[in-house]
Amino acid sequence: MVIVMNPTATAEQIKRVIGRVHNVGLRTHIVEGEFRTIIGIIGDKKTIMSLAVEALEGVEKAVPISSSYKLVSRDFHPQSSVVDVDGVKIGGGALVVMGGPCAVESREQLLEAAEIVKAGGAQFLRGGAYKPRTSPYAFQGLEEEGLVYLAEAKAATGLKIVTEVTDANAVDLVANYADMLQIGARNMQNFHLLRAVGRSSKPVLLKRGLSATIEEWLHAAEYIVNEGNYNVVLCERGIRTYEEYTRNTLDLSAVGALKHLSHLPVIVDPSHGTGKWHLVRPMSMAAVAAGADGLMIEVHPNPAEALSDGPQSLNPKNYMSLMNDVYKLSEFLKTQSE
Amino acid sequence: MVIVMNPTATAEQIKRVIGRVHNVGLRTHIVEGEFRTIIGIIGDKKTIMSLAVEALEGVEKAVPISSSYKLVSRDFHPQSSVVDVDGVKIGGGALVVMGGPCAVESREQLLEAAEIVKAGGAQFLRGGAYKPRTSPYAFQGLEEEGLVYLAEAKAATGLKIVTEVTDANAVDLVANYADMLQIGARNMQNFHLLRAVGRSSKPVLLKRGLSATIEEWLHAAEYIVNEGNYNVVLCERGIRTYEEYTRNTLDLSAVGALKHLSHLPVIVDPSHGTGKWHLVRPMSMAAVAAGADGLMIEVHPNPAEALSDGPQSLNPKNYMSLMNDVYKLSEFLKTQSE
Amino acid sequence: MVIVMNPTATAEQIKRVIGRVHNVGLRTHIVEGEFRTIIGIIGDKKTIMSLAVEALEGVEKAVPISSSYKLVSRDFHPQSSVVDVDGVKIGGGALVVMGGPCAVESREQLLEAAEIVKAGGAQFLRGGAYKPRTSPYAFQGLEEEGLVYLAEAKAATGLKIVTEVTDANAVDLVANYADMLQIGARNMQNFHLLRAVGRSSKPVLLKRGLSATIEEWLHAAEYIVNEGNYNVVLCERGIRTYEEYTRNTLDLSAVGALKHLSHLPVIVDPSHGTGKWHLVRPMSMAAVAAGADGLMIEVHPNPAEALSDGPQSLNPKNYMSLMNDVYKLSEFLKTQSE
Amino acid sequence: MVIVMNPTATAEQIKRVIGRVHNVGLRTHIVEGEFRTIIGIIGDKKTIMSLAVEALEGVEKAVPISSSYKLVSRDFHPQSSVVDVDGVKIGGGALVVMGGPCAVESREQLLEAAEIVKAGGAQFLRGGAYKPRTSPYAFQGLEEEGLVYLAEAKAATGLKIVTEVTDANAVDLVANYADMLQIGARNMQNFHLLRAVGRSSKPVLLKRGLSATIEEWLHAAEYIVNEGNYNVVLCERGIRTYEEYTRNTLDLSAVGALKHLSHLPVIVDPSHGTGKWHLVRPMSMAAVAAGADGLMIEVHPNPAEALSDGPQSLNPKNYMSLMNDVYKLSEFLKTQSE
Repeated sequence: MVIVMNPTATAEQIKRVIGRVHNVGLRTHIVEGEFRTIIGIIGDKKTIMSLAVEALEGVEKAVPISSSYKLVSRDFHPQSSVVDVDGVKIGGGALVVMGGPCAVESREQLLEAAEIVKAGGAQFLRGGAYKPRTSPYAFQGLEEEGLVYLAEAKAATGLKIVTEVTDANAVDLVANYADMLQIGARNMQNFHLLRAVGRSSKPVLLKRGLSATIEEWLHAAEYIVNEGNYNVVLCERGIRTYEEYTRNTLDLSAVGALKHLSHLPVIVDPSHGTGKWHLVRPMSMAAVAAGADGLMIEVHPNPAEALSDGPQSLNPKNYMSLMNDVYKLSEFLKTQSE
Repeated sequence: MVIVMNPTATAEQIKRVIGRVHNVGLRTHIVEGEFRTIIGIIGDKKTIMSLAVEALEGVEKAVPISSSYKLVSRDFHPQSSVVDVDGVKIGGGALVVMGGPCAVESREQLLEAAEIVKAGGAQFLRGGAYKPRTSPYAFQGLEEEGLVYLAEAKAATGLKIVTEVTDANAVDLVANYADMLQIGARNMQNFHLLRAVGRSSKPVLLKRGLSATIEEWLHAAEYIVNEGNYNVVLCERGIRTYEEYTRNTLDLSAVGALKHLSHLPVIVDPSHGTGKWHLVRPMSMAAVAAGADGLMIEVHPNPAEALSDGPQSLNPKNYMSLMNDVYKLSEFLKTQSE
Repeated sequence: MVIVMNPTATAEQIKRVIGRVHNVGLRTHIVEGEFRTIIGIIGDKKTIMSLAVEALEGVEKAVPISSSYKLVSRDFHPQSSVVDVDGVKIGGGALVVMGGPCAVESREQLLEAAEIVKAGGAQFLRGGAYKPRTSPYAFQGLEEEGLVYLAEAKAATGLKIVTEVTDANAVDLVANYADMLQIGARNMQNFHLLRAVGRSSKPVLLKRGLSATIEEWLHAAEYIVNEGNYNVVLCERGIRTYEEYTRNTLDLSAVGALKHLSHLPVIVDPSHGTGKWHLVRPMSMAAVAAGADGLMIEVHPNPAEALSDGPQSLNPKNYMSLMNDVYKLSEFLKTQSE
Repeated sequence: MVIVMNPTATAEQIKRVIGRVHNVGLRTHIVEGEFRTIIGIIGDKKTIMSLAVEALEGVEKAVPISSSYKLVSRDFHPQSSVVDVDGVKIGGGALVVMGGPCAVESREQLLEAAEIVKAGGAQFLRGGAYKPRTSPYAFQGLEEEGLVYLAEAKAATGLKIVTEVTDANAVDLVANYADMLQIGARNMQNFHLLRAVGRSSKPVLLKRGLSATIEEWLHAAEYIVNEGNYNVVLCERGIRTYEEYTRNTLDLSAVGALKHLSHLPVIVDPSHGTGKWHLVRPMSMAAVAAGADGLMIEVHPNPAEALSDGPQSLNPKNYMSLMNDVYKLSEFLKTQSE
């Protein structure tokens, strides 16, 4: 961290700041500029983070130099991680697709969706049994009944199951049915829940918060890994901006940024990321070309009947066509990088 | 809701949309424009909300006309609500102030802070026993020990206690010590938690989410009220924008907007809202002038030693001066409106 | 447009609103809902736009149904446009690349850059002679001297020249040297300038404003086309969001959205869009996969010596490698869509 | 500036960075942390700004420590400036109000508005003769005819005139009629125009850009002052955020921030800032309480007939009532601070 003093800071104030830093066992480095004094701080990251020097008199601001996440950073673990979900490897070079409806609505709907998802070549079935919804009057999910249908669909198709858990108490229950636990955007900073899935033995799919910075997102992942669960996959799903045409603004530059900053695998959800089915195809192709390790795509046997997020779901025909194209693109890109 | 058809939509497609709307018991009103057909939908709000017509062929978009919250809306309850917290009325005309440190750090710190808060004339002591923090390595709060100190500070000063609850499981525990349960910004859409405090008998302070729209915020309040707890107070605490000088952008226009849309009382937190102690004074004055029912202000006996959010905490001297000014301003405004 | 009345609006107020709409020659369609009356308005787009009914008593809000741009919309002109810049076709299926330094710094720098750009296979040389800079103390460009060097580079390499014009008075001067006039992000709503390039015979590259919506951007294009210049190419270059890791958030979903809403060609600038050279490669690949008609890429013979935007410029080696990859990807995608 | 090296940077790379800094006459200060080397840079602000070290190998990022504006900063000029507009002082302690319609629509409308504005006690008449509009089909203003009416209204009422200039060529023309030149939000970074008004003898009202940071805004003011015109007043008018209820999010914390960073006077425009007339009153009161030196308020004799921005204009009755209240509040606050 670098502490920037006011141009009018007195020698006494500077001395007090330095004293406070030394008191907690950190070292300082003083830089006297033309107008201001700047104090560089060296030492343990966690101790530096806990300093509250901006409240001391004469301090203009404190500028952090490096992030406080560690276990998820590429500095700490230079090689890219591969997350193995019961045999399906995410981050190992092969494109992974998680397809399915936004919500599990009925046994029939889910089994039909699962067959379509399977036929397209995806490895995972997605579908929410617990649905966090803006309005208390919107469909909130079938809860455990939905989990049972997911397990049934797995038995029928061999697809792995990824589904959202929204409450720390329900982690064990969901883990009984799912191969991978999803943390949704609204819960990215639900720290109880992050710690709970961090203590689970199941891999975790961590969606980016509605307006989370990349740094906050990596800190959320750090909460999980810090509990001992290293099997975390990040999922970009669009951020909140002023633009109204799309439901969110899908930030594909996050893929490259995360690959630079972290060793964790990254997938992209263009369905939530755009909110419009006709943008799912171009953004899926773009995500693969940007280097994403996988895609999460909403497919519904009949989008116009969907209880949740119909406008962003692909119908079976569009899904099959897209799957054909993204896998071919992925294959092409692999031949190029060899 | 109004459904806007594509200029190229066929008569057949329009007919199918209308049929689908009628099937769920809603009525339609067809408007044929120069280029497009528009279909107005009339009937039960909840049924309208559950339509997924945007996924039907020929539909350009669906435009919502009215919001789906009801119990918290002024349409439903035209008179402003007053929330009574064990004798202290919020929304009744008198300015209410909640002061105290961001986090409960120790018995001494809290008792000292409570005396200062009391001396300034505030009615509530605030202080977090459970602290949601971006980094897993930052101070996370004293937990139940912190609640015990809050109760002790209450006994010593007579101040009411407002403190955050971050987990549905902990609602009863926190309610044993607190007079008012706070839902923090990161949990504004933690729907389990909202429902849990909705079933509590204690009043709730609902902070605005980091990037929540006013509409989403009112929906979050609707979750609580829908469980039977009508004693909800909203707290504006700044939203996330591109501006970097302030920690958040305090949206004071939300006060007037909420007063227009809802009957619930509204308070303002300029400490989190700006992140800089020197902006707390002007924004507190502004909040009162904008019509806020109260303020939540961070005060720390020694901000430079704070374990959390020191840069935005007032020291005792600045706090006393501010309290003098906001109460005088509040009194002045009352004489004006009479 | 749809006018939504308050639940408390009187019959008299509704009558006055209808009267006002009829007065300007528009037709109305009344929809009486359970709680409110809604008034649909039919007629000439421009007349509808000029209504200020929200100021009438009893009106809750006016909801626009369709946009007011016309000439640039796909409704008006269903086939995709191809913009011919002195023989190079943008939008015709072949990938177009515009490469070069952010600013023209010297004759040597530019000629060296032009040779590299040419060697990579790009069709255009970019480089600013007039540089809008946040600080008045930053390098502002070589002005006409820079234009002369651009013309010289064109003579030497055969590359087309695209360069920014920042002032309506300078349009003729810049058009003397350039093949294509660029409108920068900061001038996207400089309407004098838009009209001035609309009267020029040179094609125009219109960058998206720093925080422009897609709708505002298309309106800006409409200003140009409305003056008679149909040769407009749109360039996505990132929007302003809360995320700080990247300089801007490159909104690749805008490519698909623009292709849906408009017939104009679209290119992408990943250099300004991310501000980090190591993100230029993944985002260039992504842009091509998303369906962009071209790329604008910063290349500098020696990025570390650049007077402007060095951190986002590719060095010659990275540029050559990228060009190889984006052209191969473009070829691959063409074979797929056949 | 502080240069942060990668953890993997070699001694050779560090040496090259240092060499480059020394070459341009700046001094360095090396701080060796546990994981990285950090290089502090000392010397001339403008030279530091022109460094492009982020493009050098081994550099992680460059962190600016202080801003590059100077003439408008409080560091440079500690006392608050007072801008005298032909006898009316802005920033001298007395509240200044600029009232009037968004656009000059006709002689009658303007003269009627001017009488109302005068009756309420405002010192300035505002009204646009040149209107930058998103759509080319919206009313664009009466241009010079509008200026003539403004001069006539001035003659009739004695009000000072503030009106927007949108083109560098028109500065002299507008200055012939106006007492104060307004730079609109869309032109805040139209640097030609900023320099042109910087060479004028008339005071300038500089509105904040649609999504300008406080730092960019102060840089825009620096462009004007750097040309010799020190009479600049800043006007907060709301920023673009994701919130849709208000047209913009009025950032009142900017008032306190600007008072801290700069010596220039600051006024607030709650009409554009909120876009809703019923929010103008609470936000005007809030702006005064936050310490603003003045207000800019839209008043229209008949808002429902306004050609531009009717929904945010006050009618005469609401305006008179508001003026009474803001002046009383301003008087009250003055007695408090004495």
